[in-house]
Amino acid sequence: MKIAIAGYGTVGGGVARILEKNAQTIARRAGQPLELGAILVRRDFPGDPFESRMVRDFSAIENDDATQLVVETIGGCGVALDICTRALRRGKHVVTANKQLVAEHGAELIALAQRHGCQFLFEASVGGGIPVLHPLNECLDANIITDVTGILNGTTNYILTQMLENGAEYADALAQAQQLGYAEADPTADVEGIDAGRKACILADIAYGRQIPPERVSMRGISGITALDARFAAAAGMKIKLLGRAVRAPGGVYVFVCPHFIPQTQMLACVGDVFNAVSVSGSEVGNVVFYGPGAGRFPTASAVVGDLIDIARNPNRPQPVCWEPDGAAALLDADDHPARFFVRSRDTREALEQVLGKIDWLPEQEGVNGGFTAETTRRALDESGAALDAVYPVYEL
Amino acid sequence: MKIAIAGYGTVGGGVARILEKNAQTIARRAGQPLELGAILVRRDFPGDPFESRMVRDFSAIENDDATQLVVETIGGCGVALDICTRALRRGKHVVTANKQLVAEHGAELIALAQRHGCQFLFEASVGGGIPVLHPLNECLDANIITDVTGILNGTTNYILTQMLENGAEYADALAQAQQLGYAEADPTADVEGIDAGRKACILADIAYGRQIPPERVSMRGISGITALDARFAAAAGMKIKLLGRAVRAPGGVYVFVCPHFIPQTQMLACVGDVFNAVSVSGSEVGNVVFYGPGAGRFPTASAVVGDLIDIARNPNRPQPVCWEPDGAAALLDADDHPARFFVRSRDTREALEQVLGKIDWLPEQEGVNGGFTAETTRRALDESGAALDAVYPVYEL
Repeated sequence: MKIAIAGYGTVGGGVARILEKNAQTIARRAGQPLELGAILVRRDFPGDPFESRMVRDFSAIENDDATQLVVETIGGCGVALDICTRALRRGKHVVTANKQLVAEHGAELIALAQRHGCQFLFEASVGGGIPVLHPLNECLDANIITDVTGILNGTTNYILTQMLENGAEYADALAQAQQLGYAEADPTADVEGIDAGRKACILADIAYGRQIPPERVSMRGISGITALDARFAAAAGMKIKLLGRAVRAPGGVYVFVCPHFIPQTQMLACVGDVFNAVSVSGSEVGNVVFYGPGAGRFPTASAVVGDLIDIARNPNRPQPVCWEPDGAAALLDADDHPARFFVRSRDTREALEQVLGKIDWLPEQEGVNGGFTAETTRRALDESGAALDAVYPVYEL
Repeated sequence: MKIAIAGYGTVGGGVARILEKNAQTIARRAGQPLELGAILVRRDFPGDPFESRMVRDFSAIENDDATQLVVETIGGCGVALDICTRALRRGKHVVTANKQLVAEHGAELIALAQRHGCQFLFEASVGGGIPVLHPLNECLDANIITDVTGILNGTTNYILTQMLENGAEYADALAQAQQLGYAEADPTADVEGIDAGRKACILADIAYGRQIPPERVSMRGISGITALDARFAAAAGMKIKLLGRAVRAPGGVYVFVCPHFIPQTQMLACVGDVFNAVSVSGSEVGNVVFYGPGAGRFPTASAVVGDLIDIARNPNRPQPVCWEPDGAAALLDADDHPARFFVRSRDTREALEQVLGKIDWLPEQEGVNGGFTAETTRRALDESGAALDAVYPVYEL
């Protein structure tokens, strides 16, 4: 099977290298050699080992009937969407690591693959190298999925780990993440929960069968978290983690991203540094968790090549992962999601309990009160009139 | 697709119930209804909702051409092997949860499925409800697998959790496990590592491509672990876990089961109670971990029904998971596996260091010395002549 790669950045370059390095093992597992064809680039790579394969115009790939599969590792929804659409229309399979593309255009690309008898796969778009979409879509098929909750962004998890384990302030931890190459110069998509939100949408799409529009999803990031919150969490025997969630409820599904307090007895609390994990609850299986590297060249490329082998083994099967386009109506307002909440305030305990009811107080930190409410909603807290400086739901299975 | 179930115990009964309860969802995902046919039983189940389907003679299933798939949930290698062989020879797919059968006869049943154009699947045989064999066999296919290490037996993990978290003695923890229904009246297969050993063999078979004979694998159980070991582990910030391992090395593979000391920073250290987890290291992905319920009626049946749907979706594909029969020659002696070891002794520190070299001592417990060696092997420790009362390797990624 002849494969083209569109986009020669971190992940695209990793795919080319794995196809070369592990060619023999891959051929045995795929039942045929995976032959690397053209690589679509936007600039020169003088002296690169794959230089002779590079092309500047996608038409060269589009019009090559021998190329049966296109790997898209450009990112975003501009050129990437155009290329994927053109490839699928020609009956070429497409494998991508592009979470924005899948979150925003998954349903239409899946439908296009179905119409043209080819496949559109994207295991790498959520959780990087961790196998999670395939298991969710296949192995757990006997279940009604009730809850999918993940640590879906490594950069923010690194920052939170630095704040909680090493007492770093938010700004210092972010600077450190940028120095180590985890965070971009403009870290907005990571720290404001946008990246995690896209991945939560893809998980929701698979688990609930309808495309949830990312622009309608509530995304709260970590930029408001303080060292004081970290101290309260430690005092409670908990961690603070940015969670992307998709929770089934009567009448629809809550899909949202926000920082949660997590008891240390939960597996998700054990996930430190840049690692990711996805917890899935199903009607029959109970709870399973998938853990591993959520980003990085070779882990992400490992998931892409896994999809390539999967297609090479099953070139004639129908599109294996599908959902309907119109999920907006199923989306419930995240402010109504019921949970216990950690609340922090400079107000007195008496005044707070008068409007919020009984609160499970933690030891006072620097003259500030913090504790846990009974089950309620963010909306009820907002409307209570209580002077709250921070509000975080508690994640409990 | 018409399905027969052979064996109506915990798992077989769970499969029947899930097929009935989630019939609509399952039919949509499988692309066709999964219709429950005959159930093979050895005794009467008066008043059981599935009573009318029960048969006593497998010939009724074997000779029914409409039955395309047989679920084997009898256990062991007697009747179960006979039934699987007969079903595959008739071109009927087989799905099983039977780890002993897969560990001892996997290669021959796979070859039989290949010869008769049908499939033999067994996701439930390792890790119960946790998707682990499919991801290992498919999603991680781009990798050379270097290490598979798991907490593969829930009963022993429960006992060890009681010993470490609650200071219970081994005998009391075992009695508690029996009371709760986790451990059998004869707990030998669990506590002596035989059950974990079979699962380690299956993981090794998939990861390394050759069948490792379970009877040649070193299996050490937990019956020798004392509360004193638990105290040393706690003092070191570690846990004690029974690990089943398959480790690639130059010239072969180490496959063995024994209790390990695990630093609390490792994900496997976070796995408590009756839960299971499998950690997989690959050349490209680094390390991923799969966690969840390793046993129980509905979790295990969830994995079985996942395999049924997988076959119903892809009835004509060739056998998807394969290995060669002759793995014995690749098996390296577990006593030569290099690791740091925790050692415990009533001898003096000076005398021990004289024969073992520098040791990283932990605080003395009840007049007994314990600490960590530099990297060595169990064979070297045995041959050193040191008077060691306990020897446990340290698990480090």
